Amino acid sequence: MKKYCFGIDVGGTTVKCGLFSTEGVVLDKWEIPTRTENDGKQILPDVAASIMGKLAEKNITPDSVTGIGIGIPGPVNENGCVPYAVNLHWGYVDIEGELKELTGIPVKAGNDANVAALGELWKGGGAGARSMIMVTLGTGVGGGIIIDEKIVPGFHGAGGEIGHVHVDDSITDPCNCGNCGCLEQVASATGIARLAREELANSTDESILRGKDHISAKTVFNAVKEGDALAIRVAERFGLYLGKALAGFSCVVDPQIIVIGGGVSKAGPILLDFIEKNYRKYTFSACRQTDFALALLGNDAGIYGAAKMVC
Amino acid sequence: MKKYCFGIDVGGTTVKCGLFSTEGVVLDKWEIPTRTENDGKQILPDVAASIMGKLAEKNITPDSVTGIGIGIPGPVNENGCVPYAVNLHWGYVDIEGELKELTGIPVKAGNDANVAALGELWKGGGAGARSMIMVTLGTGVGGGIIIDEKIVPGFHGAGGEIGHVHVDDSITDPCNCGNCGCLEQVASATGIARLAREELANSTDESILRGKDHISAKTVFNAVKEGDALAIRVAERFGLYLGKALAGFSCVVDPQIIVIGGGVSKAGPILLDFIEKNYRKYTFSACRQTDFALALLGNDAGIYGAAKMVC
Repeated sequence: MKKYCFGIDVGGTTVKCGLFSTEGVVLDKWEIPTRTENDGKQILPDVAASIMGKLAEKNITPDSVTGIGIGIPGPVNENGCVPYAVNLHWGYVDIEGELKELTGIPVKAGNDANVAALGELWKGGGAGARSMIMVTLGTGVGGGIIIDEKIVPGFHGAGGEIGHVHVDDSITDPCNCGNCGCLEQVASATGIARLAREELANSTDESILRGKDHISAKTVFNAVKEGDALAIRVAERFGLYLGKALAGFSCVVDPQIIVIGGGVSKAGPILLDFIEKNYRKYTFSACRQTDFALALLGNDAGIYGAAKMVC
Repeated sequence: MKKYCFGIDVGGTTVKCGLFSTEGVVLDKWEIPTRTENDGKQILPDVAASIMGKLAEKNITPDSVTGIGIGIPGPVNENGCVPYAVNLHWGYVDIEGELKELTGIPVKAGNDANVAALGELWKGGGAGARSMIMVTLGTGVGGGIIIDEKIVPGFHGAGGEIGHVHVDDSITDPCNCGNCGCLEQVASATGIARLAREELANSTDESILRGKDHISAKTVFNAVKEGDALAIRVAERFGLYLGKALAGFSCVVDPQIIVIGGGVSKAGPILLDFIEKNYRKYTFSACRQTDFALALLGNDAGIYGAAKMVC
């Protein structure tokens, strides 16, 4: 009887690996370096060797493994191939074909942000739901859409690229994507810092934030917790942008739950307050009670989601 | 061998019915009245009698029918039940259970707008694609989201309710849904007429539209085709609202094709020009080449989509 699966999360510097029971219990967790030299040709053989070594160590036969799920920092097409992955120095790689060839075990690949969303649905902030919008607020704004417990990868691999929804005509400096006025420019960690600098420049109000060398999303939300009026204005603007955007997304896919993760989400439940009140104001009446939750799995979301793809 | 299926589209005054081969060829098409009196209790028995009569007429045995697909003007939950359907005078109806009980044939129910979208994907403007955003521009703005050839109904039945995405803070009169500034208020037939009235009031420019008793989306787009500058400004505003909204939706679900239907789409390909240029300007780079098409099936989209659900 098959009862194990592997969840692999390939990052630019390390590959996170997990051995799971098919019920979703982590039996072992480890990391190996990501060797990007020589066009990253060694990455999949390293992953395969690590998996085969783990099977030998645990006395598990390959035929009791349902599969290997693997998340990649790049687009993954419907044939399980990666057209390119800049951080891995990869051009076109048939990742499912190659890794299956190396291990003899079925492989399912997905984009890392989407895979992490699936992990949060399975065992994290979205556990128990079947559909979800995941928002990852880090240096940028990423995301993943899950419908009927499956990732929506998108025809061009852009499913869940919610950081690049246009939300503000008045922003004239470009986003990393080349457009201007993206959600990422106002709702990521760097976006929140940007809003704070604007508020500081546009008023002379006293604030904990004034005069600080470095303003981050963390310093902003710490100031919010101390009741700093200017920081609260920043949080209100952030919540208006993100809440209104999510209100629109619910009119498209109407998920059961919206999960907020990424470094910014460490601010805790207060972050949700600013988002939710705007969401509930702007969304369609039928979606007004949609649940919100913080992500729970942190950096492990990727290995959970990868495992879920094959069990 | 099963080789037939039925597609049923229940409207407030008539029920459209189609007998299909499972390849999607319409073998027969007819209508019966929708008897809404007495809480609409007669609607499903009428549909069942009509189906059984058609089988007898055509000498088809029930066991060669894969199923009955049925579209309803109301939300349909994941158990195939309708909590309410105002136009049918229905309260809670277990439509799949009841109609199966009456016919002995498996039944699959869906919301009519979503079902019509599936029809356009199968045999209409989206034929050949596996994922689609359908936009229906009529008195209101409706829609349907198809992922992997399946309808996204939404957790609260609000999947594809894109007419109620908030797009304009400056609108202070309420939409039918109760919110203000919905896409429906500026991109439906009535929304386009509204934009035209605004343009006429805000300028003294000569225009074919000036002095007309009745301004409709049709008169606006006819004037656009004659080069009327004011009508073109109206079409530009419509295209900006809808193109920008669709640009954002593609960052969420990244469909293969976007299909525009409903009465307004009778304006023809010129309608797409105004939408597409704004879509391509505002969307994420990976989605810039998404295909656009006009809907092809008109009022038959519903019976096609209903049949597709069961074949």
